[in-house]
Amino acid sequence: MFEAAELGRKISKKDFDKEEPELHTRLLAVQRALRETPIPVIIIVSGVEGAGKGQVVNRLNKWLDTRGIETTAFWDESDEERERPDYWRFWRRLPARGSIGIMFGSWYTRPIINYVYGRIDDSEYERQLHRISKFEHMLFEDNALIVKFWFHMSKKDQRKQLEKENKDKRYSPLLKKFSKRYQQFAAASEHAIRLTDQGVSPWHLVEAVDRRYRDLTVGRILLESLENKLKDYEAAKHRHRGAKTAKQPTAETVTVLDHVDIEQTISDKDYDRQLKKYQKEFYKLTWAAKQKQRSSISVFEGWDAAGKGGGIRRMTAAMDARLYKTISVAAPTDEERAHHYLWRFWRHLPRAGYVTIYDRSWYGRVLVERVEKFAREEEWKRAYQEINDFEEQLHEAGIVISKFWVHISNEEQLRRFKEREKTPWKAHKITDEDWRNREKWDDYTLAVNDMVTHTSTSYAPWSLIPGDDKRLARVEIVKAACRRLEEALSKD
Amino acid sequence: MFEAAELGRKISKKDFDKEEPELHTRLLAVQRALRETPIPVIIIVSGVEGAGKGQVVNRLNKWLDTRGIETTAFWDESDEERERPDYWRFWRRLPARGSIGIMFGSWYTRPIINYVYGRIDDSEYERQLHRISKFEHMLFEDNALIVKFWFHMSKKDQRKQLEKENKDKRYSPLLKKFSKRYQQFAAASEHAIRLTDQGVSPWHLVEAVDRRYRDLTVGRILLESLENKLKDYEAAKHRHRGAKTAKQPTAETVTVLDHVDIEQTISDKDYDRQLKKYQKEFYKLTWAAKQKQRSSISVFEGWDAAGKGGGIRRMTAAMDARLYKTISVAAPTDEERAHHYLWRFWRHLPRAGYVTIYDRSWYGRVLVERVEKFAREEEWKRAYQEINDFEEQLHEAGIVISKFWVHISNEEQLRRFKEREKTPWKAHKITDEDWRNREKWDDYTLAVNDMVTHTSTSYAPWSLIPGDDKRLARVEIVKAACRRLEEALSKD
Repeated sequence: MFEAAELGRKISKKDFDKEEPELHTRLLAVQRALRETPIPVIIIVSGVEGAGKGQVVNRLNKWLDTRGIETTAFWDESDEERERPDYWRFWRRLPARGSIGIMFGSWYTRPIINYVYGRIDDSEYERQLHRISKFEHMLFEDNALIVKFWFHMSKKDQRKQLEKENKDKRYSPLLKKFSKRYQQFAAASEHAIRLTDQGVSPWHLVEAVDRRYRDLTVGRILLESLENKLKDYEAAKHRHRGAKTAKQPTAETVTVLDHVDIEQTISDKDYDRQLKKYQKEFYKLTWAAKQKQRSSISVFEGWDAAGKGGGIRRMTAAMDARLYKTISVAAPTDEERAHHYLWRFWRHLPRAGYVTIYDRSWYGRVLVERVEKFAREEEWKRAYQEINDFEEQLHEAGIVISKFWVHISNEEQLRRFKEREKTPWKAHKITDEDWRNREKWDDYTLAVNDMVTHTSTSYAPWSLIPGDDKRLARVEIVKAACRRLEEALSKD
Repeated sequence: MFEAAELGRKISKKDFDKEEPELHTRLLAVQRALRETPIPVIIIVSGVEGAGKGQVVNRLNKWLDTRGIETTAFWDESDEERERPDYWRFWRRLPARGSIGIMFGSWYTRPIINYVYGRIDDSEYERQLHRISKFEHMLFEDNALIVKFWFHMSKKDQRKQLEKENKDKRYSPLLKKFSKRYQQFAAASEHAIRLTDQGVSPWHLVEAVDRRYRDLTVGRILLESLENKLKDYEAAKHRHRGAKTAKQPTAETVTVLDHVDIEQTISDKDYDRQLKKYQKEFYKLTWAAKQKQRSSISVFEGWDAAGKGGGIRRMTAAMDARLYKTISVAAPTDEERAHHYLWRFWRHLPRAGYVTIYDRSWYGRVLVERVEKFAREEEWKRAYQEINDFEEQLHEAGIVISKFWVHISNEEQLRRFKEREKTPWKAHKITDEDWRNREKWDDYTLAVNDMVTHTSTSYAPWSLIPGDDKRLARVEIVKAACRRLEEALSKD
């Protein structure tokens, strides 16, 4: 594959100077147009050591308006990064819509290095590459433009570069180290490029020996990619407007919720005894998890007034306040809106040993966004897969995931709404929106059924909590949280 | 001082149950009103170990609407935090306007512990407490409400608590350790409380033995503080509206800018030679700084079209692209607007060994915000002090600060504006706003003079760069950056 990038292509200074002004001007124009769109642009700068990736980054920063570009070098890893799932460090640096992120080093770097140094085997390497291609696909579906550059030079040219740097006494720690394994890197990279060279995020192999050729090629490719993306976006805008789905989901007769026995109750005595028992157990388990550096995530979803808040408080009351964080998911901020819908949840992932509780969560995508048609059908349908992938990554990073759907009957909800309206410190909890949501009970039932069906996995199962008896629900929640944590810790 | 909190105050369950509902309801109401204001609320929860601070945090989370509260436990420190100035970890957790931040542990924790364990001496302790009181004052000036609770129990009661926890097998690592130094903690805390008990952020000593008394007292104090703050805010709103300053700054005849020799030029040959020389030097210095874990910050301010961008690019071209980050300061995002104006700059502080370049900066407060009257006179006037304190903290953390004002003559600016309008890839840089700013040249001159006068400190001096000859300016910038870095590294 790389032979195609060892052809000795060159561009003279004269030709470069002739072409650069127009390229520069057009890049700026297209960057300006980009600003008004929901497109985040990701430029991946990678390739062999010594190919001048840093120079390319500098050149791009010169050609483009620096307001609206962010360059990130994925290099030293911090412990905040190390203590979270691998991709956390990438998520936190993804560019916002309308802006450009230059990734110097990327999600490719580590798999390739680990493979070359024999730290992962063939099948693990393929699995990681497969994850990359799914990740890029997901970003693409969210309007991202991904432009991937691979800068190549032959072994001979790399050696020349190394000698030159030695002569200039320029300190470049990786070149020396990596050049010893040129062939292995070439083979591993070729494999990575092959497996991830997809239509939604194609690779561009660039010959890197001649600086002018290299940079001009990058400029041309980037310009073309941006211009095409903007054209596609304009065209798609009109298509979507027409194609708004009119299809209505129809309520099936039996859903998973019908199997939740909401008639169960618990006596006062049992409530006090059991709650205390499980809270005590939970207290110990969360400390044990802290010591073993295992994080947890609890997700709470449920009908309005089902008692999510009460359940959460029974959990948090049983934890050291230093260990947990509760995230109440409300309207996104503008920084959040400017990213993929999962970005705001990645942000809050706990460090090793800590607990994050999400009061409502990413499941909004397949619940309210589906029912209220904030998300298009293809968007919420592919969300099941995206969410499963997301949770799988959490699981692989050792995070224990508990998910609760707190279920109540339609009649019980009505009773609680009315009661809340009468209680001074609860009245604020009932809004017109809650009454409107009630009218969509059947739509939500179907959405919940689909959600549980698609996203109850071995590593992140749903617990359906019977909620008509509030106190029973609380006991069940703390108990289920104990079981999940206990099970996870016992496997260490 | 603490005797006042050893009186054995108690509240019966009956009295508690009678008072709680109204307190709860009113807290919720005032929290709702808060949302519509620019007031961030900071609740500091501190006191002796075993006093039930975690329980108080849980109670507050029960009484208040969790949407709009964030609890932060300042406990384990991450390396991302360790590698930045001390207060970075607090800045990143400050609540947004209209919301409440509960600080479990705070900026008090470390000074007290360090003092008790003899890691800092009396004068350093006082200095750190003084910094706290300035910090709180600054937040207050930015509309913050700061409510500080100190939970107290006697040595005897603490011992009882310890025995109880031992019996319950509750794991509480600090209680055991700290209870051995009860007296020392009491003395150190008393000193801290005395020195920082100021009108803008008063301490509330709360007797912690009886849980109901403790929590109800917290609720009452919090309610009263919130209600008073909202009243003050409403009153102040009307005052400010009337008192808008009509006073105009008058241009003095001679300013620091008159001393900048903008007539200087550099020959082609000297430019090439010197630029190359200093860039090479800068490359080495930034790597040396990386190895010594010394960060740098460069701040660029200057007239429109003065050549800030060109200067920045000459610096970045001389650095490994992995080492630096350029922050172009444009309009703040809504998350940024919801915080103190310095928050958005704290966010981007580099980790140890890295470089952040700010293309425009916190100096906007005393330049554009002053001239355009976005900030009131008392706001930009106190900003000098706030900025000096900020930079002092950076300096103490080992960050090397370079600040550049790139200066050009009024005529040269006009020439460049016209030239830009004619050049395709530069035309986007000239907007109507630039032409409007030009009309305020004298106001800006005065603002720059005051800025340099007030904020050129030994640890963060301004370099006034003569910019009429663009190339000379670039050389001078890279050279000055070298000198700053070299000087700092030589002291290690």
